[in-house]
Amino acid sequence: MNYRPLIFVTNDDGINAPGLKALVEVAREIGELIVVAPDSPQSGQGHAITLKEPLRLKKVDVFEGIEAYECSGTPVDCVKLGKHVLLHQREADLCVSGINHGSNASINILYSGTMSAAMEASLEGIKSIGFSLLDYEWNADFESCKPFLKEIMLHVLEHGLGNCKLLNVNIPAVPASVLRGFRICRQAEARWIERYVEGTDPRGQKYYWLTGEFMNQDVGSDTDVWALENHYISVVPSGHDLTRYDAIEHLRPLEHRAAQVVPE
Amino acid sequence: MNYRPLIFVTNDDGINAPGLKALVEVAREIGELIVVAPDSPQSGQGHAITLKEPLRLKKVDVFEGIEAYECSGTPVDCVKLGKHVLLHQREADLCVSGINHGSNASINILYSGTMSAAMEASLEGIKSIGFSLLDYEWNADFESCKPFLKEIMLHVLEHGLGNCKLLNVNIPAVPASVLRGFRICRQAEARWIERYVEGTDPRGQKYYWLTGEFMNQDVGSDTDVWALENHYISVVPSGHDLTRYDAIEHLRPLEHRAAQVVPE
Repeated sequence: MNYRPLIFVTNDDGINAPGLKALVEVAREIGELIVVAPDSPQSGQGHAITLKEPLRLKKVDVFEGIEAYECSGTPVDCVKLGKHVLLHQREADLCVSGINHGSNASINILYSGTMSAAMEASLEGIKSIGFSLLDYEWNADFESCKPFLKEIMLHVLEHGLGNCKLLNVNIPAVPASVLRGFRICRQAEARWIERYVEGTDPRGQKYYWLTGEFMNQDVGSDTDVWALENHYISVVPSGHDLTRYDAIEHLRPLEHRAAQVVPE
Repeated sequence: MNYRPLIFVTNDDGINAPGLKALVEVAREIGELIVVAPDSPQSGQGHAITLKEPLRLKKVDVFEGIEAYECSGTPVDCVKLGKHVLLHQREADLCVSGINHGSNASINILYSGTMSAAMEASLEGIKSIGFSLLDYEWNADFESCKPFLKEIMLHVLEHGLGNCKLLNVNIPAVPASVLRGFRICRQAEARWIERYVEGTDPRGQKYYWLTGEFMNQDVGSDTDVWALENHYISVVPSGHDLTRYDAIEHLRPLEHRAAQVVPE
């Protein structure tokens, strides 16, 4: 490629997260970057947007020679602000989000700021990839997966994603020597077995703090969870249409029932 | 029904919202209620959860004779806390969320705290319905739609939802006399045309405030947006699997590409 693609980079762990630094290092080998990331960690923010408060955007010198900003809002706010205030008429060729510190496989996509940021860009028509490493440590090893990240970015820039605009990519926390490459998957049907730790604060007020354990109930070998357990990088083509088409006919009788309450 | 079903009630506009009051008034005619709602408005919170802070739960006397709590967290936090701390071993027969002040049709489901709360309950296996009225006013008319809400709750309790666990129900802001009943739909493919209002605060710092206009690009007459424009109550059976199955084969070549970077 002689043309240097414009790559929009964001995350949910914040502008100073090592995962973002690793992602920037890979992406800058491929294209021109613009980075907009939250000014504080935003894990678990899902698709939250800021409506009741103004947002702040501050140019920062975090990555040498790269245009970068920190934003006071959520990951989705970063994408919206980047698109409307910073990119203006420029079109990004690709959006990459992450590398998240921790898994966003299976239903974790719903809670994930990393994936919601990527999804927001995809709603704007930008091909987007969210990356997550299955290691929650701040100083996780992001080196092993870098060549794979570069390959998938190049692949998407060269071949596109068909009708789809979004990939959820999760990387097992294993040494490069045992990584078995990419596997195209579906989102596993799993759940969290949660509980709340109860405590009493220094003022004598009761509080509840969420904790839990991820449980995969899905035995398919075509899922992201299976791929990760078998040392593959899982790649789930993802969308934003939540309609359960298979349930539409089951619900048709409700259309008739309604007539009973329509006033004469 | 002689058995009084247990109905979990929540919302995203907060414990004092008129939409919640209307929903409680309908639901109490059908079953026993437990209400857990945010202690402040949480519009646009999407599927956000609170991870870094403890949560508070306070019993409140807002609805006469009804067990109700306000929660310091997001709508999804309300459902998780309700499920794990308040319901314990009891199983809710139904979760209802809303009535939201404003539309959650089409892609608005992604940003909606109302729908994320309902989805969270559905992830726990509880049949759930999110309700939204297409009127952003705090003092919107919630009376006209009440008989319809009762009908749909009874229908779901009597007939279930098949494999599906979640309905996204939106109600047009029209008088009861012109409401044409329910229509089972798919989620319209639409988008927001957004911009940021820029300003300078009293301290001389620049800020950005989100504003925008909803634009439907989807001409189908089987969508929720079409139904609402034609004075139907839209009912979209919804899920949480974001996989784009139609894109899986398109991406297969990536699985081979990966081999190039696997270290020897």
